[in-house]
Amino acid sequence: MFVTRSALALSFTLALAAQDAPSTKTMTQPRYVEGKELVQPADYRTWVFVGASIGLSYSESGSSTGPGRFHHVYIQPEAYRYFARTGRFPEGTILVMEVHEPEQKVSINRQGYFEGERRALEVAVKDGETFEEGWAYFDFANGAKKSARAFAKEMCFSCHRQHGADDNVFTQFYPVLRGLKKKAN
Amino acid sequence: MFVTRSALALSFTLALAAQDAPSTKTMTQPRYVEGKELVQPADYRTWVFVGASIGLSYSESGSSTGPGRFHHVYIQPEAYRYFARTGRFPEGTILVMEVHEPEQKVSINRQGYFEGERRALEVAVKDGETFEEGWAYFDFANGAKKSARAFAKEMCFSCHRQHGADDNVFTQFYPVLRGLKKKAN
Repeated sequence: MFVTRSALALSFTLALAAQDAPSTKTMTQPRYVEGKELVQPADYRTWVFVGASIGLSYSESGSSTGPGRFHHVYIQPEAYRYFARTGRFPEGTILVMEVHEPEQKVSINRQGYFEGERRALEVAVKDGETFEEGWAYFDFANGAKKSARAFAKEMCFSCHRQHGADDNVFTQFYPVLRGLKKKAN
Repeated sequence: MFVTRSALALSFTLALAAQDAPSTKTMTQPRYVEGKELVQPADYRTWVFVGASIGLSYSESGSSTGPGRFHHVYIQPEAYRYFARTGRFPEGTILVMEVHEPEQKVSINRQGYFEGERRALEVAVKDGETFEEGWAYFDFANGAKKSARAFAKEMCFSCHRQHGADDNVFTQFYPVLRGLKKKAN
């Protein structure tokens, strides 16, 4: 009887765990050409926005005089829901970062900055089958490159691994994902 | 024969126009209690992000010493697609603005700012049936108020009417909507 109860409890727990991790079947998956060249993600502007920043740098000695550039970051809706429920990023997660020039004094704006022209389009992908480190990072030359090779491990991966609060992702800088963590935990 | 051709051409044009304006049937609509008190929109973080800014002000003489606060703005996916196709905002459009404290020097960040705690939640609604001006503006006290009354016309509407590049909306500050206008026109 005890065994049966344990088995029941276990299957119940497993069922709950399965329920806790929402399906990612419909999620846009990373696509590659010529082996490991990532195809530029399409329609990411309808994905979920996770946070913005300006002039973010990891260096003490900055050479920039202005406010720096805006970054804003998107994630697939399914990966967002998966993270909301489990606190983890599913395989196939894609994060897209747009970099925008700061603009000011346009129209009635007198102080502060808004996002001007896009200057860069960069992508992080979680794909342990294709990349042995689990995550890989790509630069699409502000959209001009339709596919891109991953950066060498030392260029992005190592810093993301060391400093990303969750599984290589800088969730500490993204208010939308920080908010989800509070709910998931 | 000429009349028939014209009629055909007209019906074809009308069919195209109908096709150009995508359906907003599934769009989250503004909901009200006690007449015209807008209910706080739910799940807007899965809507479409249109742009971020920091410290944006319309006043020449600023009293702030820091960089000011981040704003970021969302729109319903259906209204986004409608604007993409037609360059116009459909009735029922809701724009949600989150205001976040600027944060710095957390984790490996040494320069620049990312979005810290949310400090305000404000909403614009296009609803000509409920509000004679067509648009109305609401402050949800950073989420604490579950419903809110519209601001008086002089508080928000007049400035939006005068300076919003498109139909009371400051599309000039939102890179995602600016990009759509280039395609729609």
